[in-house]
Amino acid sequence: MTGQITLYSSKTCPWAQRTEITLQESQLPYKRFEIGLKDKPEWYAPKINPASKVPAIAYGGPNVPADQPSASSHKIAESGVIIEFIADLSKDVQLLPKDPIQRAQARFFIQTVAYKVYESYFIPIKSGTDPASLLEAIQVLQDFLPSEGYAIGEWSIADAAVTPFLARAEVAFSNDLGTYEPGRGQAVWAKLEQEPQYERFRKYLADVKGRKSFQNTWDAEHMKNAYIGHFSRTSTA
Amino acid sequence: MTGQITLYSSKTCPWAQRTEITLQESQLPYKRFEIGLKDKPEWYAPKINPASKVPAIAYGGPNVPADQPSASSHKIAESGVIIEFIADLSKDVQLLPKDPIQRAQARFFIQTVAYKVYESYFIPIKSGTDPASLLEAIQVLQDFLPSEGYAIGEWSIADAAVTPFLARAEVAFSNDLGTYEPGRGQAVWAKLEQEPQYERFRKYLADVKGRKSFQNTWDAEHMKNAYIGHFSRTSTA
Repeated sequence: MTGQITLYSSKTCPWAQRTEITLQESQLPYKRFEIGLKDKPEWYAPKINPASKVPAIAYGGPNVPADQPSASSHKIAESGVIIEFIADLSKDVQLLPKDPIQRAQARFFIQTVAYKVYESYFIPIKSGTDPASLLEAIQVLQDFLPSEGYAIGEWSIADAAVTPFLARAEVAFSNDLGTYEPGRGQAVWAKLEQEPQYERFRKYLADVKGRKSFQNTWDAEHMKNAYIGHFSRTSTA
Repeated sequence: MTGQITLYSSKTCPWAQRTEITLQESQLPYKRFEIGLKDKPEWYAPKINPASKVPAIAYGGPNVPADQPSASSHKIAESGVIIEFIADLSKDVQLLPKDPIQRAQARFFIQTVAYKVYESYFIPIKSGTDPASLLEAIQVLQDFLPSEGYAIGEWSIADAAVTPFLARAEVAFSNDLGTYEPGRGQAVWAKLEQEPQYERFRKYLADVKGRKSFQNTWDAEHMKNAYIGHFSRTSTA
């Protein structure tokens, strides 16, 4: 029997959303506790995750309030570890295929393709580099994708791993939010929306955004305000 | 039935040794092909790994010579992906426990502890920072280890992931090889060998180095010469 699951998450954090999407897909019951990233509860690091990061899971042990974690539950951190853990727990829903080759493909996608997408949108937002890096990453993503369906065919944790980055890239770039040169985000996003060479990407993005697991864990307005709050250009403030 | 396995490896590369140790432990038959890192065959990137890195595996397909890879085998790259793949293939030998919590612990160890050990010895060798970073990483390793046995109790791919880094740290630091301040490597390694607080680490190091899978895939003299060749201090040349 599966133990109780409490997820410590943050609406802003893409790494956390990976684990929420995976939990939603698994249909396993779980409690969710929002951790304010600028205002973490003092019990969070000592009792849940010494690294003081989200996401983290408390698994098993007694059914206690999320803000009074039990010492006898297992604490699991790191989004890549948690999504594999949920796939291992999930019996009714297959979140990672049984075939070793497909499992390797999903993990390769998570470790290389998804990570490249992350760097390609977040470094421009944070450090002001050219958002065109996203176009290169989307090309790598497209080259990996099969002609239809998800990253390895059926939906898997590989899709959970990349979707939060794509959704955040869209919010930031289509609204030109970030510290890069004004106009460059919207110019890059317009290419992805219009150029024929990105058609496979557009289909994939529509597919992953169409999942209930994404919609139930996504708040575009919240994310937009977070980017405005954290990464405004000083020259346009 | 398991398909044929051809491993493209390099004696120098710790990431490659992770996969060789895992293959040895699995008892699966495999062919091994040495890739010279400074002199890669021209077919390697186009036919095996577009990123042109070791390790990589060709799995399945016809039984062809390693230097004439078949287009119909599956190519799998990235050491973290390959060791999970071998664990998934291995039926007779359990390379990762079945329990989801233990699997999560092993993966957390691979993604965080082993990676910290890697950075803590290799950045000093390459970039000349203080080798004392290894002492911090070994403390993190010790804090993770159970009171006896391997990273999560029984031997697992978690141990395959960290052992190549520990062996290389020993060769480099005990011989004071690298670009850091002369004498600092030997000073740090002497602490690990002598101070009471590192006793658990010494036992663990002896345990992992005692495995046949390590001894069959390790050439200390070769590694020593590689460090002398690549990371000599210009001031003492």
